Amino acid sequence: MTRGFFIGRFQPFHDGHRAVVEHVADDVDELVLGIGSADVSHTVHDPFTAGERVLMVTKAVADADVQTYVVPIEDIDRNSLWVSHLESMVPAFDVAYSNNPLVIRLFREAGVEVRHPPMVERHRFEGTGIREQMLDGDEWADHVPDAVAEVIDEVDGIERIRTVAEDDGSEP
Amino acid sequence: MTRGFFIGRFQPFHDGHRAVVEHVADDVDELVLGIGSADVSHTVHDPFTAGERVLMVTKAVADADVQTYVVPIEDIDRNSLWVSHLESMVPAFDVAYSNNPLVIRLFREAGVEVRHPPMVERHRFEGTGIREQMLDGDEWADHVPDAVAEVIDEVDGIERIRTVAEDDGSEP
Amino acid sequence: MTRGFFIGRFQPFHDGHRAVVEHVADDVDELVLGIGSADVSHTVHDPFTAGERVLMVTKAVADADVQTYVVPIEDIDRNSLWVSHLESMVPAFDVAYSNNPLVIRLFREAGVEVRHPPMVERHRFEGTGIREQMLDGDEWADHVPDAVAEVIDEVDGIERIRTVAEDDGSEP
Amino acid sequence: MTRGFFIGRFQPFHDGHRAVVEHVADDVDELVLGIGSADVSHTVHDPFTAGERVLMVTKAVADADVQTYVVPIEDIDRNSLWVSHLESMVPAFDVAYSNNPLVIRLFREAGVEVRHPPMVERHRFEGTGIREQMLDGDEWADHVPDAVAEVIDEVDGIERIRTVAEDDGSEP
Amino acid sequence: MTRGFFIGRFQPFHDGHRAVVEHVADDVDELVLGIGSADVSHTVHDPFTAGERVLMVTKAVADADVQTYVVPIEDIDRNSLWVSHLESMVPAFDVAYSNNPLVIRLFREAGVEVRHPPMVERHRFEGTGIREQMLDGDEWADHVPDAVAEVIDEVDGIERIRTVAEDDGSEP
Amino acid sequence: MTRGFFIGRFQPFHDGHRAVVEHVADDVDELVLGIGSADVSHTVHDPFTAGERVLMVTKAVADADVQTYVVPIEDIDRNSLWVSHLESMVPAFDVAYSNNPLVIRLFREAGVEVRHPPMVERHRFEGTGIREQMLDGDEWADHVPDAVAEVIDEVDGIERIRTVAEDDGSEP
Repeated sequence: MTRGFFIGRFQPFHDGHRAVVEHVADDVDELVLGIGSADVSHTVHDPFTAGERVLMVTKAVADADVQTYVVPIEDIDRNSLWVSHLESMVPAFDVAYSNNPLVIRLFREAGVEVRHPPMVERHRFEGTGIREQMLDGDEWADHVPDAVAEVIDEVDGIERIRTVAEDDGSEP
Repeated sequence: MTRGFFIGRFQPFHDGHRAVVEHVADDVDELVLGIGSADVSHTVHDPFTAGERVLMVTKAVADADVQTYVVPIEDIDRNSLWVSHLESMVPAFDVAYSNNPLVIRLFREAGVEVRHPPMVERHRFEGTGIREQMLDGDEWADHVPDAVAEVIDEVDGIERIRTVAEDDGSEP
Repeated sequence: MTRGFFIGRFQPFHDGHRAVVEHVADDVDELVLGIGSADVSHTVHDPFTAGERVLMVTKAVADADVQTYVVPIEDIDRNSLWVSHLESMVPAFDVAYSNNPLVIRLFREAGVEVRHPPMVERHRFEGTGIREQMLDGDEWADHVPDAVAEVIDEVDGIERIRTVAEDDGSEP
Repeated sequence: MTRGFFIGRFQPFHDGHRAVVEHVADDVDELVLGIGSADVSHTVHDPFTAGERVLMVTKAVADADVQTYVVPIEDIDRNSLWVSHLESMVPAFDVAYSNNPLVIRLFREAGVEVRHPPMVERHRFEGTGIREQMLDGDEWADHVPDAVAEVIDEVDGIERIRTVAEDDGSEP
Repeated sequence: MTRGFFIGRFQPFHDGHRAVVEHVADDVDELVLGIGSADVSHTVHDPFTAGERVLMVTKAVADADVQTYVVPIEDIDRNSLWVSHLESMVPAFDVAYSNNPLVIRLFREAGVEVRHPPMVERHRFEGTGIREQMLDGDEWADHVPDAVAEVIDEVDGIERIRTVAEDDGSEP
Repeated sequence: MTRGFFIGRFQPFHDGHRAVVEHVADDVDELVLGIGSADVSHTVHDPFTAGERVLMVTKAVADADVQTYVVPIEDIDRNSLWVSHLESMVPAFDVAYSNNPLVIRLFREAGVEVRHPPMVERHRFEGTGIREQMLDGDEWADHVPDAVAEVIDEVDGIERIRTVAEDDGSEP
């Protein structure tokens, strides 16, 4: 039995993330999906709460051909403790999937095997791009699984990201 | 669609917890299982990590007749923020299930409907009792779902709880 | 111009605290009232939130013959930082009033003058006693200023302390 | 009885803030003034401690036609907990006054009524502008209540902001 | 080159600790001495600050036949992160010395070799015993290195522990 | 007996820092070297852990003509508590050495004498410059004590800083 680990902020979970899950599903029997920066929300960069993202991710991978665990991970702000922190929060895994240099480095210093999910490259900047589309119009919905679009509608997500983007520099 | 919420420390998840899940499954369409004190582990009172408990709970409810979300919740140590904290970490829910007076009070002050799961009474002290049985012998395995016993074996849980119980008052 | 400082948890603010304020009012021109353990609430030992205590204290000293500042102070859990922490939160003061040995020690190591408020002795255990009376009946109201009793009524405080006292040892 | 809430960093409290207080005083019986970022000080953006700001604000609104409560609020760095955090620290209020989009959004998601204080617009950038004037000369004193200028003099505030502005990029 | 690690609260550093250092000095080329609970002070159980203990320990092992590093370690309150936390704070080591069951367990789960320092047994309860002697009289000085007694005198340590022991149950 | 204090992030400890130590050694009998931002590592700005820096600094000053104490100091993120925080972590000192305006201001408000180490001026930007050289080639080794270069080699430091510098903006 092999268990893999893949972490993202999933703001929101989009088709690029979904492609990684499908790629990894061929490799492993079980997959842990860590929701990073779980404590951050209500900003343009991180509009959704961890709970909203648990809902998005769980629904978006429900039909994937792999047993999944979806776990929010609060930020710890100490790189040297980050691997232990997330290892304490998720089921033990055999291999981590990432293309982020810092994440790769931290896993390797901790002796964790890291593999590169090839599909994610094509979608690299989709997170930022999709959030910009959310501010501008409806195109964003073409780039996320249907289940994610439904969750965003339910939580009034577009209105939220537009409101927090209006920040005008007034104090406080 | 109704979504319920049930929180426990699940140290470990036992047949009493399982009975609550079955009871609640008749009431709701989806159930969020919050793993409390997620940041606490390696003590007699809280031997297992959040990740180990995610594994136990997910496997133990896999065949329940309800869609479940299993989410670790770190302690926040401020009662007045506790409801907001967990609401930010889990999918929005309509009703919470609890027999703990403080939990009930905090939910009610926050305007959340609370129901009492009747089955849990019979098993009230099972958590403590099962941990004592873990220190003494094998009987504990009769009181937890098979999937939980397997996880405890995999993580060498009995050896861990016995080691930390040996604390002899030596410093530090 | 002399400014004094007096800190208490004020759970609740009672006649003994009021007597100290009256005593100190003869000594100083202005008095800072620090509400300790501001982040703790909803327990038998600390039933009221900082905000509820701000209301109690402000109303209970409104007619005192001294300018007052009522400031909540969150716990910092590091004795060696406690004086700097509260000094950063309140207006600069010339003298602190306390009979608590640890508080006195910490102020003296920091070079702050400490005086003993004599009236507080007679009422020393009133905090605990009044909380016990809240659990048992109505007598508590005789030992707090009228304004405090009104705030406790408004926030449904007796019901809250009785609920959290019902804790029956069930998990979590 | 209506109680309002208005939060600012008040670095320093200036005539624009004072105008808001006067405007709100016509609306409500009591006004809670929350001092945001209470834990931040000794920077160009946030030169004054919470305690110094308690002094400024209390003195600057002493003659306002409304009962006021001045309460420092430490940052919590989790938007989803911010409303609960400040609600636990201040007396319960009926309506919040703000023109900041994030603040408005967080209050509305928590079900709190929000009103816009019209006067604050004219003074929007005064906080930054006044701090720049503090670095350059004496004009700042024309834009704050006299009581505030006195507090800034007492705490040697101009010297402090000029010193911390000298940061020359040297390490540490 | 072999580097060892030994942690204690060192409240205060006594002859039993010194005996361990001498024992370990035969085993290793360099020794890291971790000062645990570095953030705790001014209580009967933990009277001395980390800085005072850095002074005690450094002077008490100055003549030991091993290169030493004396490093304060703040508590982290999460057993599952404790090994990573201290590994980030001290030079990399090859073997840890401890007789504390929890410490041993945490190191072993992290793959760190642990050895038992035999000398510490005889002195097991000296920490508590010495603090009781500090409350009662002068005998304590017979059980600590001279350099430690000098530091305790310099920081007025006996007076401090006696003061904080006077805590009389008064609030706060 | 005079004890001095000098704090730096020491990322890495370089010849400029060494020159300060030599200058100060003429002034004082003992010198405390505080390692700032001890909790930060694995970034381009702060590549090394506190433990790695303890090793660098201790070895680099081993032959200095002064008794040294090398102590990591975790960030506290509250300027008003910073002096108390570090005073609790290090042996009591008589004079601090710094050219950083904020550090000087905080010490002076706390009543601590501050002196300016003249030698550090010439090397002011070496920290940044040396880290840039680490990314580009080998020249960095000319600007640090040999003992520091050895530690950086041992911990594979150049590879680490190059890896974390590769961050390409991909999420997370």
